[in-house]
Amino acid sequence: GAAPAVHAQAAIRWRLAASFPKSLDTIFGSAETFSRTLKELSGGKFECSVHAAGELMPPFGVVDAIQNDTIQMALTAPYYFTGKDSIFAFGCAVPFGLTARQMDAWMEHGNGRKLMDEFYAKYNIVSMSAGNTTTQMGGWYRKEIKSAKDLQGLKMRLGGGLFGEAMAKLGVVAQNMPAGEVYQALEKGTLDATEFVGPYDDEKLGFNKVAPFYYYPGWWEGGAELEFFINKKAFDALSAENKAMVRAAGAVAARDMTAKYDAKNPIALKRLVAAKTQLKPFPKDVMDAGFKASMEVFGEHEAKSPEFKKIHQDMRAFQRDQLLWDRFSEYRYSSYMTTVKV
Amino acid sequence: GAAPAVHAQAAIRWRLAASFPKSLDTIFGSAETFSRTLKELSGGKFECSVHAAGELMPPFGVVDAIQNDTIQMALTAPYYFTGKDSIFAFGCAVPFGLTARQMDAWMEHGNGRKLMDEFYAKYNIVSMSAGNTTTQMGGWYRKEIKSAKDLQGLKMRLGGGLFGEAMAKLGVVAQNMPAGEVYQALEKGTLDATEFVGPYDDEKLGFNKVAPFYYYPGWWEGGAELEFFINKKAFDALSAENKAMVRAAGAVAARDMTAKYDAKNPIALKRLVAAKTQLKPFPKDVMDAGFKASMEVFGEHEAKSPEFKKIHQDMRAFQRDQLLWDRFSEYRYSSYMTTVKV
Repeated sequence: GAAPAVHAQAAIRWRLAASFPKSLDTIFGSAETFSRTLKELSGGKFECSVHAAGELMPPFGVVDAIQNDTIQMALTAPYYFTGKDSIFAFGCAVPFGLTARQMDAWMEHGNGRKLMDEFYAKYNIVSMSAGNTTTQMGGWYRKEIKSAKDLQGLKMRLGGGLFGEAMAKLGVVAQNMPAGEVYQALEKGTLDATEFVGPYDDEKLGFNKVAPFYYYPGWWEGGAELEFFINKKAFDALSAENKAMVRAAGAVAARDMTAKYDAKNPIALKRLVAAKTQLKPFPKDVMDAGFKASMEVFGEHEAKSPEFKKIHQDMRAFQRDQLLWDRFSEYRYSSYMTTVKV
Repeated sequence: GAAPAVHAQAAIRWRLAASFPKSLDTIFGSAETFSRTLKELSGGKFECSVHAAGELMPPFGVVDAIQNDTIQMALTAPYYFTGKDSIFAFGCAVPFGLTARQMDAWMEHGNGRKLMDEFYAKYNIVSMSAGNTTTQMGGWYRKEIKSAKDLQGLKMRLGGGLFGEAMAKLGVVAQNMPAGEVYQALEKGTLDATEFVGPYDDEKLGFNKVAPFYYYPGWWEGGAELEFFINKKAFDALSAENKAMVRAAGAVAARDMTAKYDAKNPIALKRLVAAKTQLKPFPKDVMDAGFKASMEVFGEHEAKSPEFKKIHQDMRAFQRDQLLWDRFSEYRYSSYMTTVKV
């Protein structure tokens, strides 16, 4: 027969590698929402396959894989890459940093996204939010933390970022181990504590059975933004229409992740408390020691890197305005709401 | 010559009417962002023209216009329509209700959107968020409000929703007048007070010059969600691809509006204070009287409408969990952040 006169519209197939396992369904779900939305928006002409940590590469290989054009996208926590450059932390969370909404505001209507994308360009990355974990918990401890002294020598599994440097100043001994080994190490006592995310994610790992003291707030993650890292070369090659689809699918995914955390965390927290988790606020001297150590860490990085200093100072100036406004708006409103029975 | 063999792909042209003037660039801007994103996503094949209040119809005519298929979309504050049914308020803000993030969570991962769209169906409406004003201020007053007694006989311009019913119980005499006449009425003293939104929007109207006492927090709008109302018949007739474009363009617009308010409000507040605005917290007895009056209003509507009661109780159950979790997460974190100098 005659060759068909109509050619199928060129299809685009991207690959996204996540630094997270599927079991973290809040975070990993953002990549799935992104992928599904992109497919819907394009009527199937633009697809992005989604791969959990380890499927295509190790969890922390995703930045290199974008740089060498192995993948077109990643879903990650930028602070995993402070070993490359401490500036990565500002794309995610720093100690005593921004909350979820403050981060969105700094990124999209402050200088945040612009400054970060200028920095990311050297890694062939364009960034967009994948959502926010919201304020995290301060982790699980086998014994009570009654003062900052109790952190001395504490063997703790820590997430990424500048927080580890602040904790080291407080005497915490960071332990590196795969997530799958943490439960047993806490049970045996070769590990004293671990931090993770918040009630919904933490509950699945069962830490309450082996480290019942659950401290708050996670002062190192007042709101951790997960990011979609996009291969800049691949993104620049897209049509305006396809670029808009990537951006819009990202907005759908980011809104969804944050709302999901907010909806699911309280219910998980109630279950954890019913299962004998002991909720404890960090003592004030621990918070103060953490703040002092963190500010020293920022000072050290500022002394080494003018680019770090520029971004840090921009973020703090924005934060100061946010903290001022918060006193007259949501924080004040929330203060009253804690006193009434709705 | 021969007729062209290729037909242009069917174009869709929608119209969106806003209940707001262009001068409210935060809120109105959400419709513009929606429209621009929809055009980009569709490569110009799906366009939605955006019309300010009064262009196609009066600001509060938009629900009727969707019901009689005059327009395909509206951008509005659902609580403007509590005259039709008090349930509309839950799609926007109710006294002592949800904050911005809580509203997103209830809507998208609680029962909120499902319950509201079941209700809206009788008006031929499908809803989606257009963004949130975040916690509003409590308005501008010519004289200090030292106790709840000072509200007795106060002539005040009020926004929509159930709040007016609570204020009436406190003795406030609601004044209906166009926004453009408020400044002069305050100057003359025929009006004692007005509430509006927050620093960024309020500043443009110059109220600080004629009513210098600026009270907080706006307990009737802990977070007011603006909504895109979509003509259900028109939406149902769209392809899956075009439906996804409407949803995704909405997500882009909603994220943008909330971030814009958060970024712009603090800077406007500082300018207002520099221009002699006197910031004052509502006295506790005013907050308590407002809370009591509001709960009475909710009780009255619940007694009249099982559907109102069902939605109200669902929202409050969700809110109780949110308030519990807030104590251990962002509220606790923010409490500490108010005590340090970043």
